[in-house]
Amino acid sequence: MQITILAAGQGKRMNSRLPKVLQPIAGQPMLGHVLATSRSLGPRALCVVYGHGGDQVQTALTAPDILWAEQAQQLGTGHAVQQAMPLLGDEGAVLVLYGDVPLIRANTLQALVDAAGSSRVALLTVTLANPKGYGRIVRDVNDRVVSIVEEKDASAAEKAIREVNTGILCAPAAMLRGWLGRLQNNNAQGEYYLTDVIAMAVADGVEVVAQQPEHEWEVLGVNNKAQLAELERIHQRNQADALLDAGVTLLDPTRIDIRGELVCGRDVEIDVGCVFEGRVELADGVRVGAHCVLKDVTVGAGSVIKPFCHFEEAVIGAAGVLGPYARLRPGTVLAEDVHVGNFVEIKNSQIAAHSKANHLAYVGDATVGSRVNIGAGVITCNYDGANKFRTVIEDDAFIGSDSQLVAPVTVGKGATIAAGTTLTQNAPADALTIGRARQLSITGWVRPVKKRPA
Amino acid sequence: MQITILAAGQGKRMNSRLPKVLQPIAGQPMLGHVLATSRSLGPRALCVVYGHGGDQVQTALTAPDILWAEQAQQLGTGHAVQQAMPLLGDEGAVLVLYGDVPLIRANTLQALVDAAGSSRVALLTVTLANPKGYGRIVRDVNDRVVSIVEEKDASAAEKAIREVNTGILCAPAAMLRGWLGRLQNNNAQGEYYLTDVIAMAVADGVEVVAQQPEHEWEVLGVNNKAQLAELERIHQRNQADALLDAGVTLLDPTRIDIRGELVCGRDVEIDVGCVFEGRVELADGVRVGAHCVLKDVTVGAGSVIKPFCHFEEAVIGAAGVLGPYARLRPGTVLAEDVHVGNFVEIKNSQIAAHSKANHLAYVGDATVGSRVNIGAGVITCNYDGANKFRTVIEDDAFIGSDSQLVAPVTVGKGATIAAGTTLTQNAPADALTIGRARQLSITGWVRPVKKRPA
Amino acid sequence: MQITILAAGQGKRMNSRLPKVLQPIAGQPMLGHVLATSRSLGPRALCVVYGHGGDQVQTALTAPDILWAEQAQQLGTGHAVQQAMPLLGDEGAVLVLYGDVPLIRANTLQALVDAAGSSRVALLTVTLANPKGYGRIVRDVNDRVVSIVEEKDASAAEKAIREVNTGILCAPAAMLRGWLGRLQNNNAQGEYYLTDVIAMAVADGVEVVAQQPEHEWEVLGVNNKAQLAELERIHQRNQADALLDAGVTLLDPTRIDIRGELVCGRDVEIDVGCVFEGRVELADGVRVGAHCVLKDVTVGAGSVIKPFCHFEEAVIGAAGVLGPYARLRPGTVLAEDVHVGNFVEIKNSQIAAHSKANHLAYVGDATVGSRVNIGAGVITCNYDGANKFRTVIEDDAFIGSDSQLVAPVTVGKGATIAAGTTLTQNAPADALTIGRARQLSITGWVRPVKKRPA
Repeated sequence: MQITILAAGQGKRMNSRLPKVLQPIAGQPMLGHVLATSRSLGPRALCVVYGHGGDQVQTALTAPDILWAEQAQQLGTGHAVQQAMPLLGDEGAVLVLYGDVPLIRANTLQALVDAAGSSRVALLTVTLANPKGYGRIVRDVNDRVVSIVEEKDASAAEKAIREVNTGILCAPAAMLRGWLGRLQNNNAQGEYYLTDVIAMAVADGVEVVAQQPEHEWEVLGVNNKAQLAELERIHQRNQADALLDAGVTLLDPTRIDIRGELVCGRDVEIDVGCVFEGRVELADGVRVGAHCVLKDVTVGAGSVIKPFCHFEEAVIGAAGVLGPYARLRPGTVLAEDVHVGNFVEIKNSQIAAHSKANHLAYVGDATVGSRVNIGAGVITCNYDGANKFRTVIEDDAFIGSDSQLVAPVTVGKGATIAAGTTLTQNAPADALTIGRARQLSITGWVRPVKKRPA
Repeated sequence: MQITILAAGQGKRMNSRLPKVLQPIAGQPMLGHVLATSRSLGPRALCVVYGHGGDQVQTALTAPDILWAEQAQQLGTGHAVQQAMPLLGDEGAVLVLYGDVPLIRANTLQALVDAAGSSRVALLTVTLANPKGYGRIVRDVNDRVVSIVEEKDASAAEKAIREVNTGILCAPAAMLRGWLGRLQNNNAQGEYYLTDVIAMAVADGVEVVAQQPEHEWEVLGVNNKAQLAELERIHQRNQADALLDAGVTLLDPTRIDIRGELVCGRDVEIDVGCVFEGRVELADGVRVGAHCVLKDVTVGAGSVIKPFCHFEEAVIGAAGVLGPYARLRPGTVLAEDVHVGNFVEIKNSQIAAHSKANHLAYVGDATVGSRVNIGAGVITCNYDGANKFRTVIEDDAFIGSDSQLVAPVTVGKGATIAAGTTLTQNAPADALTIGRARQLSITGWVRPVKKRPA
Repeated sequence: MQITILAAGQGKRMNSRLPKVLQPIAGQPMLGHVLATSRSLGPRALCVVYGHGGDQVQTALTAPDILWAEQAQQLGTGHAVQQAMPLLGDEGAVLVLYGDVPLIRANTLQALVDAAGSSRVALLTVTLANPKGYGRIVRDVNDRVVSIVEEKDASAAEKAIREVNTGILCAPAAMLRGWLGRLQNNNAQGEYYLTDVIAMAVADGVEVVAQQPEHEWEVLGVNNKAQLAELERIHQRNQADALLDAGVTLLDPTRIDIRGELVCGRDVEIDVGCVFEGRVELADGVRVGAHCVLKDVTVGAGSVIKPFCHFEEAVIGAAGVLGPYARLRPGTVLAEDVHVGNFVEIKNSQIAAHSKANHLAYVGDATVGSRVNIGAGVITCNYDGANKFRTVIEDDAFIGSDSQLVAPVTVGKGATIAAGTTLTQNAPADALTIGRARQLSITGWVRPVKKRPA
């Protein structure tokens, strides 16, 4: 079986510089969804017909398994498939998909392919409450598909038909090649319609079978931002339902966004308003508080993430206590039972077990040992304006509030840094290191008073 | 054409100290919406009939073009319009609107005014699935409106009528004046009903025409907080749909709130949970992350706003990188490519191109040059307890972490301030300025141990 | 009247270590909701039939008024009620409820109990659009309930019945005891069905009356996380509607979560995305901004809470200005007109009237007087690595930016602490206390340049 995906449309109604098939659903281009679904079917060939913004499309979705066919002029769906045919062989069937119909499911397509077999045309149809505007599926007295009638050509009886064409079909390659070669564009739009192959198949005595998807949303296409938003929400709700099925507790299935892959252990709970991007893994018993944003993050068992956290490319060990308002940036690796609290930012740092940074701190480019206490307002000065240096804090150190650790610098095991110290040289183990001006009180000093405008 | 808006109702069911017509939809009083729509029709006169909380209403919506008519006692809608008539002329028509029906559209009203012309009464009606409780529109065999029958007076046949009165009407001023003068209050409530003018018009041989709005929500009134919330959501969804139509990408059209005006360029993307207040302009390619709150903000092309930002009365240049958790307060002006990061607050400051303040800083009353690096934890001490002073940081300066700049103070071009310095005098250009105690280690020092309760 | 609650089910489809009846709705175990509703009816006895995870259930909901009956094997609903009967008396009726049907309302149950009286069986039924799968209520020509027919035993005519059994019933205790003793398990599942008592009652000439709840959601049961989420949202929407009825302004009734009790005064306004846990009281005129999380908090009249605040176990006085991004932790007590601003964390501290901490500060274990100004970046160093100490700041003190107050320490009345001071000894009243290194500029110093990789 071979797949061709039509992805040449401009999508003028999207009002965007981005080609239509690159418009994202769940953070991934629509065409990317169709490609992923296609690949899961294991096709012998995978061809994308591109046109508008072709460079952008190829750059965004470059992959060795894709055969790219250019459709320089948009002369209809039949014309588009024709551009793909030189890249496809005559054996087996060709499945025609659309880059702007992103939610089609693999199960549905496999059933369609199976229905086509080696000698039939299989057409994906859907029965709509309101079929207006769509091509109707006309069947004979034996309920066999005989033709597709477009709205404008339909009789009153045909207009009453609620089964409509989705455009998705699977046909034997050699036959399809023949039919495409005979397509005419003598219609109002002057286009070559793929739909016309159905009548040709019937005329050639080739059986046309119709299959329906389980869900109507599988065949919804996107032509504007309203439809893009609609499919985004359908897809998000589907993902939420899958999490619920897997036993995840979601406080509101309509207020979770997953743009990538969210893998959850047992007894995971996710509060309202959370956004997950890239690949996020939440181990058993993890609880994610309201309004968190997590991207490419692994969270160990039993960790609690409080509201308003934002993590990117970070690894969090088991039994951690994070947030609220914790900010983990790329390269953060936290071991077991690490606490990161309010308004603390950590970047490119490893923090060993049982250490804490609970308030208003910046920890960047640091290696932190176990049982370290990083006080409120502590800052690792990792940047001299040109280069970045590392700070090393060994086990059991206590970093007093508002200290600055000017890297490269090492705080020895069990060392204590006094509050307010600017540390520029290594602090020896087990000692108190302090850098502090003498405290002085000036009595009789008069506090400034409010100046009046002159 | 003249407009009178009935706005005297108490709104007891709102359970509020605020008069009903001042209850907000999208941050603006309901009456404000009706006034804005009214003004867009260019009426010759614009009269508001006030009653309960009249002072508050007049204060909140004071404007030179409004004629204020007091309705001291609430004796019905007819009585309310009567209070307006002395302020209105006899020429042209009078359009009667309601301060608690805020979503009525100008197109709908213009069509009503056009239908009335100079000699007809035009009545806005709506066809409801469940008309119970509303006045039914009774038509004759020629489908002409002949009367409005209230629920309690309706026959079974009349109760089956689903076309109902909205109360909004347009009538020739002189005729209306006459009919109002003949209204009777001999009904159960002892009120003068505006509705009764319809029967008078028919009796006088004046044609009554009915118009329907495009959307049922246009004529929904608000009597309690549940209805207020319902209209708030309808209005928000309408605004979201308009943004989608204009090509804006909304990750969830049901989770955006616009209270004012949101103007978007091309390829703008807005993530979930954002709130926009006042006038916000987002130029081409701006991306707003999840859960941001922006009020009276202008954002230049290509700027990226990460989650959890809160900006008020700020101007952001092109290609900026803001947040997460960036807080811009009034008077902030950022030039091109300025980066403001986690837990940074900026107030009443101008920051020139390519400068950065990425971590835990407070920048207030400052003028910052280009390519300046403001380190983590830096604070401009702009307030001496009585007066505020400015900090000036010239181009290419590097402000080390946790420095305090005690204003008024100037950091010269290319100057470097060492981490932890309290800067009280100007720092010369190109030099390193430092204020730091000697670092000292005390070996043999014993860290405090946990005290046991006595 | 006596109540027995069936709570022995495993809830395998919940995919959780937590027993089904402990799965939370609005932060409280489902069984907790049923117990609270039960208690409001004032039953003479309250019996919970436990089974799977019984220890967890008893620990979570321990209370002296609960009689615990073990159902060691799950042999059906009839068997479950049988386990309770030894703990219940023969007088009065027994009301049978379910630990996984959490939203049942007291009014509905009281009506059921009243309908049962002392000599009838009262059955709670509901009429469904789609009754498939439920036991149908079969009535005789006089509309009297004669039996319940399960789906699999139902004739075509019976399948068309849309009134179904909810399982909730109330029956005279002595009669119920007798019927339960005669239950058979000769059915496919080999279980004893409570439903069978209905036929026995009819056979014994005992009248069976049916009552319906006002809302269908009252009788929805939970078997999986999707249903749990569905009931969570129904319950949240109900709570939102109750707030609207009480006159609270909610910007979006579908985006508020109340997990506990939210008590609001007059003219309270709550923006989108807020979460309330425990007991929260908002006095008259309080405004809560978008995306706030409040737990066990009392807020005084007229206080304004800006977006992104997170408060726990705190008391806020009247006319406060809080946030955005303010973090109040347990033990925070703020008097009137206290301002707490961006990125400020307060813990276990009392702050008297008119004091301010507006930027990037950490105030822990402190007693702060009136009219105190706590500058940006100020930190109370309350922890020496082993013990916590208190900081006292007396009235009218001014704490300069980035100071550290090393507790135990007292700042006297009217004292001024210079920016950047590390305060280790008490600061005398009315004086300026300063600890600061001399500022020094090194000209000719060359800033580091970017190192190239070797």
